[in-house]
Amino acid sequence: MERLEQQVAFILEVDKIKQIYRQTYLADASRKENDAEHSWHLALMAFLLAEHANESVDVLRVMQMVIIHDLVGIDAGDTYAFDVAGNESKREREAAAAQRIFNLLPPDQAEFLMELWEEFECEETPEAHFAHTLDCAQPMLLNDATGGRSWNEHQVVKSQILKRNENTHLGSETIWAFQEMIIEKNVKRGMIRPDGL
Amino acid sequence: MERLEQQVAFILEVDKIKQIYRQTYLADASRKENDAEHSWHLALMAFLLAEHANESVDVLRVMQMVIIHDLVGIDAGDTYAFDVAGNESKREREAAAAQRIFNLLPPDQAEFLMELWEEFECEETPEAHFAHTLDCAQPMLLNDATGGRSWNEHQVVKSQILKRNENTHLGSETIWAFQEMIIEKNVKRGMIRPDGL
Repeated sequence: MERLEQQVAFILEVDKIKQIYRQTYLADASRKENDAEHSWHLALMAFLLAEHANESVDVLRVMQMVIIHDLVGIDAGDTYAFDVAGNESKREREAAAAQRIFNLLPPDQAEFLMELWEEFECEETPEAHFAHTLDCAQPMLLNDATGGRSWNEHQVVKSQILKRNENTHLGSETIWAFQEMIIEKNVKRGMIRPDGL
Repeated sequence: MERLEQQVAFILEVDKIKQIYRQTYLADASRKENDAEHSWHLALMAFLLAEHANESVDVLRVMQMVIIHDLVGIDAGDTYAFDVAGNESKREREAAAAQRIFNLLPPDQAEFLMELWEEFECEETPEAHFAHTLDCAQPMLLNDATGGRSWNEHQVVKSQILKRNENTHLGSETIWAFQEMIIEKNVKRGMIRPDGL
């Protein structure tokens, strides 16, 4: 019962992720989405799209990874993909967050979550590659559904998106090809700025 | 690529779950939570609390089940646990919703989701029992964290909660024992009405 109490304390602490808002709008553009909603969407995509992964993946591990990958945002905030200064200090802020938050759990589970999160961050295993592909594809699907609103608001340039997605193809060439079509469509309709302008 | 397009259409359609609000408040009581946030929370609890399940469970299947269990709410709305009339028509409304929504997917995946959802609804397998335990425990943890606000607002009576949770122990006696402590605490502080009053 003491172990369950510790787990419940963690489960209630991470409720805060429902209040960490991202720059991505919902598909109907009515408001921005938060990290809990984003993580739910990735977990769904993980098992529906696993067949498109370049290498066979452990779907359970991918789902666990995406469910916890943004918990560090509780202390470190959400860092927008195209925020240069924010991304420079991101790693340090997030590592401290992981230490505090995961250690609310019993030691064996704290260690498990730290390993999962570091595996995600290191982008070396097939599961981490695929989780990153989903993490990059999901906001792109939503942005495209809104007519490219968030890209336009942030005046995002095509090369920034390509740089951000330089490893996306490592998880799934098929999903990346789909994303490339979305990028081209939104360059054409003027929502993503072409380079050199 | 055609198959991926069909999957993406489904993934965008179910984005609507982020706008289906429940009667449960977030842990800090700042607002009510929606079905995407609730489902994210259950998926996290599924793998952290699986050790407390009465029977050994397939954690991947439990996670898939809780990730999709409330998608039917997109057409059928969220039915509050203590809404008597709503719960009478719930099954029919939700079955029609499942037909429409799951069939946006390629046939094999539509069938897989229908099986998952029906397994959840039938409450017969260890995975379905455990998923229901989580589904009942999570709002109770949040309600307790807010000081019992939602129970008080709806003037919920203890016997209603016990009736609603009559099968919760089937998934985990340990988690149910924890919930029983929460119920007693909130009866004592006057947020859950005792019976016969």
